[in-house]
Formats: sequence, C-alpha cells, structure tokens
Amino acid sequence: MEGKTILELAVGDSAYVEKTISESDVYLYAGITGDLNPAHVNSVEAKKGIFKQRVAHGMLSAGLISAVLGTHLPGPGSIYLGQELKFTKPVYFGDTVRATATVTQVNTEKNICKLSTICTNQHGETVIEGVATIMPTKAKA
Amino acid sequence: MEGKTILELAVGDSAYVEKTISESDVYLYAGITGDLNPAHVNSVEAKKGIFKQRVAHGMLSAGLISAVLGTHLPGPGSIYLGQELKFTKPVYFGDTVRATATVTQVNTEKNICKLSTICTNQHGETVIEGVATIMPTKAKA
Amino acid sequence: MEGKTILELAVGDSAYVEKTISESDVYLYAGITGDLNPAHVNSVEAKKGIFKQRVAHGMLSAGLISAVLGTHLPGPGSIYLGQELKFTKPVYFGDTVRATATVTQVNTEKNICKLSTICTNQHGETVIEGVATIMPTKAKA
Amino acid sequence: MEGKTILELAVGDSAYVEKTISESDVYLYAGITGDLNPAHVNSVEAKKGIFKQRVAHGMLSAGLISAVLGTHLPGPGSIYLGQELKFTKPVYFGDTVRATATVTQVNTEKNICKLSTICTNQHGETVIEGVATIMPTKAKA
Repeated sequence: MEGKTILELAVGDSAYVEKTISESDVYLYAGITGDLNPAHVNSVEAKKGIFKQRVAHGMLSAGLISAVLGTHLPGPGSIYLGQELKFTKPVYFGDTVRATATVTQVNTEKNICKLSTICTNQHGETVIEGVATIMPTKAKA
Repeated sequence: MEGKTILELAVGDSAYVEKTISESDVYLYAGITGDLNPAHVNSVEAKKGIFKQRVAHGMLSAGLISAVLGTHLPGPGSIYLGQELKFTKPVYFGDTVRATATVTQVNTEKNICKLSTICTNQHGETVIEGVATIMPTKAKA
Repeated sequence: MEGKTILELAVGDSAYVEKTISESDVYLYAGITGDLNPAHVNSVEAKKGIFKQRVAHGMLSAGLISAVLGTHLPGPGSIYLGQELKFTKPVYFGDTVRATATVTQVNTEKNICKLSTICTNQHGETVIEGVATIMPTKAKA
Repeated sequence: MEGKTILELAVGDSAYVEKTISESDVYLYAGITGDLNPAHVNSVEAKKGIFKQRVAHGMLSAGLISAVLGTHLPGPGSIYLGQELKFTKPVYFGDTVRATATVTQVNTEKNICKLSTICTNQHGETVIEGVATIMPTKAKA
C-alpha cells in the first residue's frame, strides 16, 4: 500500500483517475465546504449567470488531482506540499473529468518532485491546469 | 445575492469562513474525489505515518477558501481563475479551520483581483497559505 | 422494536422493501466502499462496456436484502450468519428494486432459519437471487 | 483502466483494499439501503443487544469485497456473477477492515474465475469469509 519513493520516479511518469461528476457530488461538496455559491446549487440564479446552468466547484475537480497524487503517483505516504491551479473552463454536472499527473522534476537530494496536473473533460478540453509539489514517501530501509 | 464588483473592492478588504472538520467531512470528501489515500481513511496505516493519525485532505481545507471567495468576498458571480496553495501543516479530525481571504490587488481595467488566502487552525497555526485570482461579477448596468 | 423469534416464524412468511436506486445512492455507495469502478461512476467508460451505461453496484442492491431481513423479517435482534448472492441482471440508475425475503426453513432447535432472498426490478425481472441464513432474536423470557 | 483478462489471472493472485469503517460510513449506508436496524443506528437499543454497542452492517464490509474485485483483481470490466458470504464476527465503528481477494480457480474456456474473499479486522480476525464468482473483462483484440 506504499507509494513510490523518489528513486522510483522518473520524469515523464504519468497516471490518471477519471470520474463523471454528478449533481450529488457537487451538492455534498457544497455541504462539506460550505461553498453554497448559487452558481453551484441554485439553478434559477445559475441560469442568469455566465454559464447559464449550475457548474461544479473548480476546487472539487482539483480534488481529483489530490486523488491521483495520493493514490497512484507517487501514491500513499506522499506529503502534499503545494499546488498551483488555473481554472480554464467550467465543469458541468455530468461531465467526466480526468485528472492526469505527470512527473516533470525529480530532486532526489531534497526528496521533492514536481508534477504537471491537468484536468480534462470528456471533450478533451482542459478544465484545470497546474503544478503539484510533492515529497514522496521515504525510501524503505 | 450578487457579489461585489471590482469597484466595490479595496486592498485590505477581508472575510472568512470557519468550520470544524469532522470525520464525516473527510470520509465524504474521500468518496466524492476518490482520494481514499490511507492517510485519510485508514487509522491503522495512518498510525505508522508521519502524522501518527488520520488527517484531512489538504484540498478539503482548500475548499473553505473557495467558500469564502464564492460566498463572501467577492461573492456570487465571481469567476475563479486560479489558486496557489502551500500546505504547511496537517489538519486533524476535529480541527477548526478558518479560511481568510484578503484583497491584495485590484486591477479595475482587467476586472481582476488577487486575494491572499490563509487557512489557520484553532491554535492560530497556518495550515494553508496561498493566493487566489478572481474576476469579480460585472458591474451592474 | 424487537424482531420475531424462531417460534414466530413459519415457512412461507414473506416481507419486502422497495426503493428507486438513484445516482446519489450509487455515488455515496461508491465513496463508502471505495468501489469507484468506472462501470458505476464513469459514464464515458461505461458507455463502452457491456451495459452501455453506468449501473449500480450489485452489492448495493444486496443491501436492500440486509434491510428487509434486519428491519422486517425476522427483524431487529437477528444475527446475520450468511448470504448467497447471484447477480442475474444489472440495476440501472433510476430502477426500482424490490428485495423480498421468504422463509424457507425453520430450525427451532438450532435457532436458525433460511430465507430465499430475491431482488426484482420494476419490470418484474430478477436482478439478484440468493439465500440468507439468520439466527433470529432469542425467545423473550 | 481495463482490468485483467482470464489469461492474465493465475491461482494465488491476490489483492486487497483496507479502510477504517466510520460512524458516517454506517449511517450513510443505513440511509442508502434503508437498513435502519437499531443494531446499527440506535446506541440505546444496541447496548441491550448481543454486541453491547452499534455495529456496522455485515453487508457494508461486503462492499469492500466488491471494491477489491471491481477495482483491483480482476478489476474494471469484470462482471460480478455471484458471492457467498459468511459473517463470522461483528465489525465495530472504528474497526479497520481489509478485504482480500485471492484467485482460487481459473476456467479459461468459460471465462469464469473464482476468488476466496476474506475480510479481516485490525486484530487479524476474520469478519467475513466467502467466495466470489467473476467473469473477467474479455480478452482485448
């Protein structure tokens, strides 16, 4: 159940997770975070807005980035140090979001790696782009 | 229900939301995002890890930043363009997280503002620091 | 609130529960169990699969069997010893599942009964068939 | 994202998932299935019962078996044909359940495999034992 150590990571390594974002995902997320912005949970207000319908929280899709990092690459035992996010397109209810992480830098001395983190929808459009900074699990004795 | 326009924002304006992060918050968040990293949902494995117990997802606390931005400052109608996050300390189950957003830049011409976004725990320790980039709701006619 | 004792059960006794299985049921179930198999939560991948759409977890519908046994027949106080399950048809989002339990054997000496457990959908098709083994609540003094 | 085909499975292959079962898991599961048996959600009644406290639904832990089968071994694309379950010990709130699936039979002609499916708690005690019957994903062209 242990993730990869810095020595097991190479630039170009890649992994992804993918999920169709449901209305219930958005509503539960709104409840957990308290982000009850009408853009997410008020279809009357959302219709008047720029996207003409309710959209998922950008930060919810960012959670899929956390998922791919924490469960796949580098995986369990990693310490999440930082994340840069650009929200480039809305995610609509029923969209299928793929979060892909790709190793871009490996600093063995500092035990830190960087990964490009991209979320795309089912049309191949980028909805989030960014960079994660991770301290992978320590080398096993 | 409309948020502030760029003309209604000034450097130094500040707002916050605050919530005690429960086990159920973390478990629901794990389910929504698929981030079932043992650090969050496996107390046996977590005990062996660096924090000695299960911790909340850093990205869950980041959701409180989304909440303060989207519901208070600037509020509804804002477009969330980007977010930088540094995860500086773990959030334990039962910790009370305050997400504070403070306006640091206002670009009236481009209709873009920046806010420092800090999450602290009940001991006043910073658990996340970062910067949000927002396009506030358009000026009403 | 007490269920039936072995002396109150007869072969042929029957009870059922029925529920429309929603997307949110499936999504919460996926989160609780960690079964984020794309067949259940990824409409793009599910479309390529044998059922051409997302389906509920078979084991979720099996939970309705647990419900009828634990709340109706024999009801509270029962010890659930075993369950055989055959998943005979998929359950689609929005299907209405009826879980029916019918007593087929009563062993008074051992305080054990067997029940046939059938789940059907709104078309009367069997989606699960099986057998439950239960130790009913002890006879009241 | 595709699981293993029958040709990629061998007797002895094994995988597991593991999760600490929280009160919120049990409560959400109770809500989804309608299994509001007081043994699971009524601490006053549960105190009078055989286990002296609320316990998780046996069928909830069985969901972790579905998870390991559907996401790891054989993984996505599998058709779940059947499951036998014996509930051998209660799972208490806060117990950490490991569901382990081990291939015991591979029938290449019929494209069917059998796996022993065991759930254990953090003390190494078996809480569920059983057998799964699975049709793995079809061989890729």
